[in-house]
Amino acid sequence: MRYVAILAGGSGTRLWPLSRKGEPKQLLDLVGGKSLLRLAYERVASTVPDANILVCAGAGYVDVVAAQLPELPASNILGEPVGRDSVNAVAWTTAVVVERDPDAVVAVLSADHIITPIESFREALDTAFRVAETDASALVTFGVVPTSPQTGFGYLHRGAELAGFPGCNEVAEFAEKPTAEVAAQYLASGNYWWNSGMFVWRANTLMELLQQLLPDNFAQISELAAHPDRLADIYPQLAKTSVDYAIMEPVSVGKTSAHVVAVPLAINWVDLGGYQALFENLPSDADGNRARGPVVSIGSQGNLLINTRGDNSVLAVSGISDMVVVTTPTATLVVPLADAQSVKELVAQVAAQVSPELA
Amino acid sequence: MRYVAILAGGSGTRLWPLSRKGEPKQLLDLVGGKSLLRLAYERVASTVPDANILVCAGAGYVDVVAAQLPELPASNILGEPVGRDSVNAVAWTTAVVVERDPDAVVAVLSADHIITPIESFREALDTAFRVAETDASALVTFGVVPTSPQTGFGYLHRGAELAGFPGCNEVAEFAEKPTAEVAAQYLASGNYWWNSGMFVWRANTLMELLQQLLPDNFAQISELAAHPDRLADIYPQLAKTSVDYAIMEPVSVGKTSAHVVAVPLAINWVDLGGYQALFENLPSDADGNRARGPVVSIGSQGNLLINTRGDNSVLAVSGISDMVVVTTPTATLVVPLADAQSVKELVAQVAAQVSPELA
Repeated sequence: MRYVAILAGGSGTRLWPLSRKGEPKQLLDLVGGKSLLRLAYERVASTVPDANILVCAGAGYVDVVAAQLPELPASNILGEPVGRDSVNAVAWTTAVVVERDPDAVVAVLSADHIITPIESFREALDTAFRVAETDASALVTFGVVPTSPQTGFGYLHRGAELAGFPGCNEVAEFAEKPTAEVAAQYLASGNYWWNSGMFVWRANTLMELLQQLLPDNFAQISELAAHPDRLADIYPQLAKTSVDYAIMEPVSVGKTSAHVVAVPLAINWVDLGGYQALFENLPSDADGNRARGPVVSIGSQGNLLINTRGDNSVLAVSGISDMVVVTTPTATLVVPLADAQSVKELVAQVAAQVSPELA
Repeated sequence: MRYVAILAGGSGTRLWPLSRKGEPKQLLDLVGGKSLLRLAYERVASTVPDANILVCAGAGYVDVVAAQLPELPASNILGEPVGRDSVNAVAWTTAVVVERDPDAVVAVLSADHIITPIESFREALDTAFRVAETDASALVTFGVVPTSPQTGFGYLHRGAELAGFPGCNEVAEFAEKPTAEVAAQYLASGNYWWNSGMFVWRANTLMELLQQLLPDNFAQISELAAHPDRLADIYPQLAKTSVDYAIMEPVSVGKTSAHVVAVPLAINWVDLGGYQALFENLPSDADGNRARGPVVSIGSQGNLLINTRGDNSVLAVSGISDMVVVTTPTATLVVPLADAQSVKELVAQVAAQVSPELA
């Protein structure tokens, strides 16, 4: 059976105060009406039964996830007591799936992105499932076909084409985030895809690789799968590491008998990772302002204006341009859009000078 | 006996959202620890018994006034059901005083300003009381000795010096707010003082002038003094007008047998009427920012940053200069300091587009 695991953990410093420590941006209604998590669920809901869709999120947000995805059984929502990076979220979720179905094939998807068109995504997902169903030793990744020389993503270097799966390739190499010059070469060559951080594999293949590559984590996760009541005990002790670093890269360089393949994703792939991206993905008013919530502006152009304090509140601006102004129930942020990367440092100062609770 | 009436009504559009419709700025803790009303009370508390100090404010703020001035008897705090401009606040307060003491001499003071040094103010107040006690026909005003060619104030044109009160003068004319050129001439001449909008007179003299100049208001206020329970009935029906327009100017041009005199006030007289004034009267940090409440700033200079949302909140700014950022329990304002006069228009838009309740 096919399963989907949506990873919804992580922190959201760059979108503070909309997202906060342990409260990932995936749970927020950023672009109108639906959270990124809800959109991620709806992308797969028609292709996999609800009983086979799991979500892994921070323990404090299990109720929010359940409210956003009422279709899912409660036992399909896994709450991490603390974040322990992607490999442990993946391992735990996979261990839960293996208990239910030893022959499961699992797609590990993220909810970080806006993906269009959905149909292209669904076709690639189906291809990836078929690859993993055909080849038990394949770890399938998705390579987003690049449309610009991005320096903010890692890249997949395409190797030989897969037999029986035209357009799909072995992954010859995981390439780090490149310089602008190298990114331009990657784009021109046609041989590099953006590393999407999404995967499909057989559940028991992944568990075997974990046992081989991360034996301590494997033992702890196995213990947890057998004794779910020991979650609060075991989870915090897990060593932190990422799927790419601990699994995909060792496998790609032949450390195991498995191999990494990539299915191309020809989609618009928008990471709402910061205010510039959020600005670009919200509709504009006549003055080029992008507003959410009760907002009034006069003589102001090109601003991102967000008020999440509810109907009995207002964000009012006059005579400002190209600014980010965000006001939430506990915090207000003002920063020029061009300087939005400084939010990370600002949040650190908020934690240090006022309260870690507000960061 | 000497009485003091402090007028604490009025609206505060220019300091929105710190002050709001019907919630005057006098009640706010603008400059640290004490409201302007409290400062106004403390300026006179040593010179007049608490039993003789009255405050007139919006009915909705009687509790706030009582909390800020616990020394005053409850019956000394008059709550206007609706604002009906200064002449009616003065008339009502004076009528209440006359009932208690037909020989009362009343100082009508405002709480709009920061006044230093207090000792100079107290000396001028004592002089003004003595003038009114000596001369039943005198309406005494205070003329602030100008230190710059202000175009935002009305002026008092000094006439003949008063016998027995050196430095005090008849008021020959109430001059409107001047042009910059005229204001410079006024300053150079030494014959013009700023019209402070504060007065001292015998209570029964004022009532007689009201009867003569505003017979309808006089009749209604007399009715109200006799039947305090009819406040909600009578007060809204009073015709709105100002003391200057309805009383002082007619008296100054000889419409009655009374006359207007002025006592000089050589003080620093700061009207915290807008954000520029508030900025100039708050202490600066090393970057030239003026902050109140939980505020964190990085890479920001010369801003006015005010957070009244309490300890479990933060206002965080990065990379901004010369801005006003104010966040309150229901509203957030962002406007360049140089453009702060646009707040009035912005508040009108808030009322129209979101809710009059927020204005």
